[in-house]
Amino acid sequence: MLPRAVHLTDVGPRDGLQNEGVPVSTEAKVAFVRALVAAGVREVEVSSFVRPDRVPQLADAAEVFAALGPAPAGVVYAALVPNERGLDRALAAGVGKVSVFTAATETFNRRNVNASVAESLARFAPVVARARAAGLPVRGYVSTAFGCPYEGPTPSAQAVDVSRRLLDLGCDEVDLGDTIGVATPPDVAAVLEPLLAHVPVGRVVLHFHDTRGTALVNVLEGMRFGVASFDASAGGLGGCPYAPGASGNLATEDLVYLLDGLGIETGVRLEALRDAARPLEGLLGRALPGKVFRAGPAPGPHCGGPVTPSRPPR
Amino acid sequence: MLPRAVHLTDVGPRDGLQNEGVPVSTEAKVAFVRALVAAGVREVEVSSFVRPDRVPQLADAAEVFAALGPAPAGVVYAALVPNERGLDRALAAGVGKVSVFTAATETFNRRNVNASVAESLARFAPVVARARAAGLPVRGYVSTAFGCPYEGPTPSAQAVDVSRRLLDLGCDEVDLGDTIGVATPPDVAAVLEPLLAHVPVGRVVLHFHDTRGTALVNVLEGMRFGVASFDASAGGLGGCPYAPGASGNLATEDLVYLLDGLGIETGVRLEALRDAARPLEGLLGRALPGKVFRAGPAPGPHCGGPVTPSRPPR
Repeated sequence: MLPRAVHLTDVGPRDGLQNEGVPVSTEAKVAFVRALVAAGVREVEVSSFVRPDRVPQLADAAEVFAALGPAPAGVVYAALVPNERGLDRALAAGVGKVSVFTAATETFNRRNVNASVAESLARFAPVVARARAAGLPVRGYVSTAFGCPYEGPTPSAQAVDVSRRLLDLGCDEVDLGDTIGVATPPDVAAVLEPLLAHVPVGRVVLHFHDTRGTALVNVLEGMRFGVASFDASAGGLGGCPYAPGASGNLATEDLVYLLDGLGIETGVRLEALRDAARPLEGLLGRALPGKVFRAGPAPGPHCGGPVTPSRPPR
Repeated sequence: MLPRAVHLTDVGPRDGLQNEGVPVSTEAKVAFVRALVAAGVREVEVSSFVRPDRVPQLADAAEVFAALGPAPAGVVYAALVPNERGLDRALAAGVGKVSVFTAATETFNRRNVNASVAESLARFAPVVARARAAGLPVRGYVSTAFGCPYEGPTPSAQAVDVSRRLLDLGCDEVDLGDTIGVATPPDVAAVLEPLLAHVPVGRVVLHFHDTRGTALVNVLEGMRFGVASFDASAGGLGGCPYAPGASGNLATEDLVYLLDGLGIETGVRLEALRDAARPLEGLLGRALPGKVFRAGPAPGPHCGGPVTPSRPPR
């Protein structure tokens, strides 16, 4: 029994652009976020209040939020926050939701933020408490929930344990990421079965990478467990830093195309979503990898011939 | 309940290379077929005995079969055959299996072979009879079984009807193709449910294109109906002629990666499969799109760092 509706978070402006080598202007980011919302996306991960020298692509987080102004009714503008200083900046910028992030594997977390998982969780305690006191919902990301570029397959108990700790800290939801895109449906089941014994399914978000083509089969498996909130990136923006030249985030269009086919409501219009991502190809100077982004929607009845695909920039 | 084992046909040498603009030498084709077999592929669609002026990429079909010699035990070398003259050439070349092909939609068949579906079927009657008399198994392809670039969505009754007619002609199996890659699982179910009311599931093969990212979810749906024979193309070779720049055939590596994850036996070794497709990148001068081909297999436990991805040719 699949859910009737699914909540989508487009992480393209943050997770996508962070992994693109070419800087994008503040104006273009703002236009991108607005176009996503115009396409029906109700949650956008807009930027990240991490150290600008670490992630220069997102150094303009405050400017992006300032230019965006308040989110329209029913829309959430979220931002990543690594610590209390980041939270201060995020609160000053008027973010609508805060995301903290750690990993299910020690080596990944150490290399990513130079801290153990326990240290990260301790650092988040005041962040989560203050964000909630400010009335903001908090998401807790668990990277490498299924596999780690350094440690190999992640024991599911680790992903479950870190998820529960994030929720115990006060996170409203936990978002388990297949950071290197290795999961197949049995891996998803191996995490969700024990996790959902302790956690209401409404507090679980899944974030799949399509690096090995399994993102959509994993979404299906997640939905079979009742999960109804997924991350994706318009156009498939953002490569995989652990396998250069390979895909990273699941493309939002590909997810919407499948959900449309399954009759599952998302509120997102496919063609408008393609329009939102299209300017990024020119700005980044590369073809975006999303399959539906490239191929276009299905040809309608008697449409007169093959659809016009998106042409990559020269 | 999924099947315990799945039979894979690699259609790369025929369906893949036919849709690549760059010609590939007979020697390279032979090496490609041999490498696929070395990787564990037990059925290869080697070439096509169509008019050389129509498909110049495959004009050397007889030379490829001659150079290959007899197929190893347990391996099938198949070829496409459009008519009796093609069958004569195929029989002389020593093919191990013959495939005839028509479509579920009239406009597509008319544009593809300048004949109605009924005319195609009539033309196949002696082809199928003579092939079987020669002791060869016969596959019947149904293109546009789910959607047509000219007519839009295909009514499932048409796909079922053409499939049954091909089997009635004497085809051993029918292979339903999502030629333009538009199907989602409900479309697969809409064809399989009525088809399997008349046809044993062992006579059904599915051929999905990943043009809109749904090939693997459709394979899963097919397996849920008991289908255990699928086509794919090493490296994702062959684009989509109906959406230039977009993906066509499902990449064999992506299919094997999923089936490996599901614990479903294929007999195919993933790394050897990547090795088989890798030379084609140099020959075609373009990066192949298969995701697992690009990203590599999952990093093992304590592998010491991210995997080395396949780098596209410069």
